Amino acid sequence: MNAHFQSIGEEFVRFYYSNHDNAQTRRNLLNLYDENALLTYEGDQRQGKNPIMEKLMAGPTQMAHEITKIDCQPLIDGGILASVIGQMKAEGESIPLSFTHIFVLKPANNQFYIQHEMFRLCLHNC
Amino acid sequence: MNAHFQSIGEEFVRFYYSNHDNAQTRRNLLNLYDENALLTYEGDQRQGKNPIMEKLMAGPTQMAHEITKIDCQPLIDGGILASVIGQMKAEGESIPLSFTHIFVLKPANNQFYIQHEMFRLCLHNC
Repeated sequence: MNAHFQSIGEEFVRFYYSNHDNAQTRRNLLNLYDENALLTYEGDQRQGKNPIMEKLMAGPTQMAHEITKIDCQPLIDGGILASVIGQMKAEGESIPLSFTHIFVLKPANNQFYIQHEMFRLCLHNC
Repeated sequence: MNAHFQSIGEEFVRFYYSNHDNAQTRRNLLNLYDENALLTYEGDQRQGKNPIMEKLMAGPTQMAHEITKIDCQPLIDGGILASVIGQMKAEGESIPLSFTHIFVLKPANNQFYIQHEMFRLCLHNC
């Protein structure tokens, strides 16, 4: 297990959003995904780096994710489970929406890759 | 990977809440935890079946968790990653609170055990 799971998880999540929130830099996220990565985005499931990037690139050009909390746990294979709650705004939106975002990070070649990712807006009764 | 990850994950989560929400039946959850399970509950981290049960049993006698969505993904070791968003009410509370709840389920002896669990209320600016 990785003793630095909390700081590594937090750093990874912050790096992810700093690249994600603008379509220009969002392309860089390709290198963070494992070949067989799984993404479930608002119930829509994708597998593999390229299908996942296609999904991400279809999002708004400019977004803002504000992190409220990041929880991390060490996995038995040296990986990290990271869970984020926060608020997001897409371009032109004025009301922030509450979200939950989960990452399973897998260690390889001295870095971490996204093996599993789940994203949901915390919307109820809709 | 387990092809029935979605139905197994959903069934597990429903079984969990059906036992969790009343302190009498909550005790049964002990058997669902792996010996080295990790729980992060509102940022409070516990490891092991007994420390986790102590934390759970300290909660309100009566609770109600209403599930909005359950997302599941198959893990490479045959396990399941399950993420729940929903609304909960503790005894005597009238306003439901939005929550996110994550489980990593590990297969052993023809059943699934909780290896990782994270719970957060979706509260911001507080």
